[in-house]
Amino acid sequence: MHSLEKMLSRGRTIAEPQSLAECIDACLNCELSCVVCADACLGEREVEALRRCIRLNLDCADVCGVTARSLSRQLQADDMLRALVEACARACSLCEVECRRHASMHEHCRLCAATCRRCAECCREALERQQLSTRGDDAAAAVDV
Amino acid sequence: MHSLEKMLSRGRTIAEPQSLAECIDACLNCELSCVVCADACLGEREVEALRRCIRLNLDCADVCGVTARSLSRQLQADDMLRALVEACARACSLCEVECRRHASMHEHCRLCAATCRRCAECCREALERQQLSTRGDDAAAAVDV
Amino acid sequence: MHSLEKMLSRGRTIAEPQSLAECIDACLNCELSCVVCADACLGEREVEALRRCIRLNLDCADVCGVTARSLSRQLQADDMLRALVEACARACSLCEVECRRHASMHEHCRLCAATCRRCAECCREALERQQLSTRGDDAAAAVDV
Amino acid sequence: MHSLEKMLSRGRTIAEPQSLAECIDACLNCELSCVVCADACLGEREVEALRRCIRLNLDCADVCGVTARSLSRQLQADDMLRALVEACARACSLCEVECRRHASMHEHCRLCAATCRRCAECCREALERQQLSTRGDDAAAAVDV
Repeated sequence: MHSLEKMLSRGRTIAEPQSLAECIDACLNCELSCVVCADACLGEREVEALRRCIRLNLDCADVCGVTARSLSRQLQADDMLRALVEACARACSLCEVECRRHASMHEHCRLCAATCRRCAECCREALERQQLSTRGDDAAAAVDV
Repeated sequence: MHSLEKMLSRGRTIAEPQSLAECIDACLNCELSCVVCADACLGEREVEALRRCIRLNLDCADVCGVTARSLSRQLQADDMLRALVEACARACSLCEVECRRHASMHEHCRLCAATCRRCAECCREALERQQLSTRGDDAAAAVDV
Repeated sequence: MHSLEKMLSRGRTIAEPQSLAECIDACLNCELSCVVCADACLGEREVEALRRCIRLNLDCADVCGVTARSLSRQLQADDMLRALVEACARACSLCEVECRRHASMHEHCRLCAATCRRCAECCREALERQQLSTRGDDAAAAVDV
Repeated sequence: MHSLEKMLSRGRTIAEPQSLAECIDACLNCELSCVVCADACLGEREVEALRRCIRLNLDCADVCGVTARSLSRQLQADDMLRALVEACARACSLCEVECRRHASMHEHCRLCAATCRRCAECCREALERQQLSTRGDDAAAAVDV
């Protein structure tokens, strides 16, 4: 079993640390992919045509990073987390669409579009299966009350 | 005029860089306030009673930081940004409520609750006045098409 | 007394929460200023001439944000923190120099150069006065042993 | 070839995108591992004994995340990057030592210590082989001058 998955399965009632770990992993991959794609776009001759791509990359990188962190915490799933994962799914989709427009010209855009797509899918699955609503029941909250 | 506000008023069609700057400012203050409150909670004798407060602080800090960054970019307001600002408002409210529970015992919680409240208000105002939908019309997008 | 300063003065032996708060504040201002300047640069007609400025802005924004967070924690000052504040001072200086090259053309670069300079100064002062070496002695560490 | 590696090999003169990709990957793994370990520590019964571990985890997570981002940018390696990678190596080592103290009690600390160790090693190798000094020579800088 993967190390992250093992760490996530401790102290949680959620049945599937595996799919949670996959979603977190997809977010981190997407964050990095977007940072690299933004930077590679900046280095292209026709950078003016890539401005929107760069901005969407930067937005997407930031949102993915925070979503990964938030998903890693043992708080009860709530509206906050749902809104955040929703924002993440949308940021990934926007970025994917834009990257795909440049995919035939730029390999980094082609690769980034694929990473964005996978992350958007993971986020949407998490929202649909309502895993988010069973993420928590954290021991800390119990102690806290 | 404040330096951030000046920078934001360049290249934007949005009528009110001032309220945008206020919202960004509130997010950054809240990020830092939550980082400090989490750390101060960790140092308290009764840290077990503050676990949930610490986790909400960490979540809130991360979401506020990213929201500030995203609000600073000249992308057209869209569902992504709305979902993110919504997540931010909720993170702040959750954190405010929890901090207030400890406010009589811990000055840092009392101060942090106030900062969270202000940030939540700024975010909600931005959502309600629909400023977010007029944020953009970015020059870059125009060039890009 | 400023709210952050108040929060920082709790539970610390460091004599001067004020200068610590100033440094943290300078880091956060610089983070945001760099995010905004990078975005404004991306929107300029002559974006190809601003690539290096954008990259330095992004680097500087990230390092400043993390330095602010790290300075906010009650850990004993050590080589890690010194290296980080050093990295922050250098990132700010690199970014200031580059921004100043474009200052006559772009107001956002002129403003950003000033914010970077101030942050670099705060970081260097902190390193020189060796405040960093008295930051900690945290209660938690004592409990921990 | 791994997707990140492919993206990094575009537009760079550095001979070894592979080892750079490994280092970036180690940083991201460490960031997440530390976020999860901090959260798991917060959930433990004896949380008071883990305060220092939590703080070091949070510091390490933040520094690792920024180092990964900075390593991904096509800027010439310089003193800033060296100081940052140095800070990252030290943060990882501090965190590893502390996590190892709790490794027999807490599986998450044992796993996190291993991830920290690997990241520290990657960073030190990068510093020693002076790969960092050949990272850049970025096309953008050339255009920029």
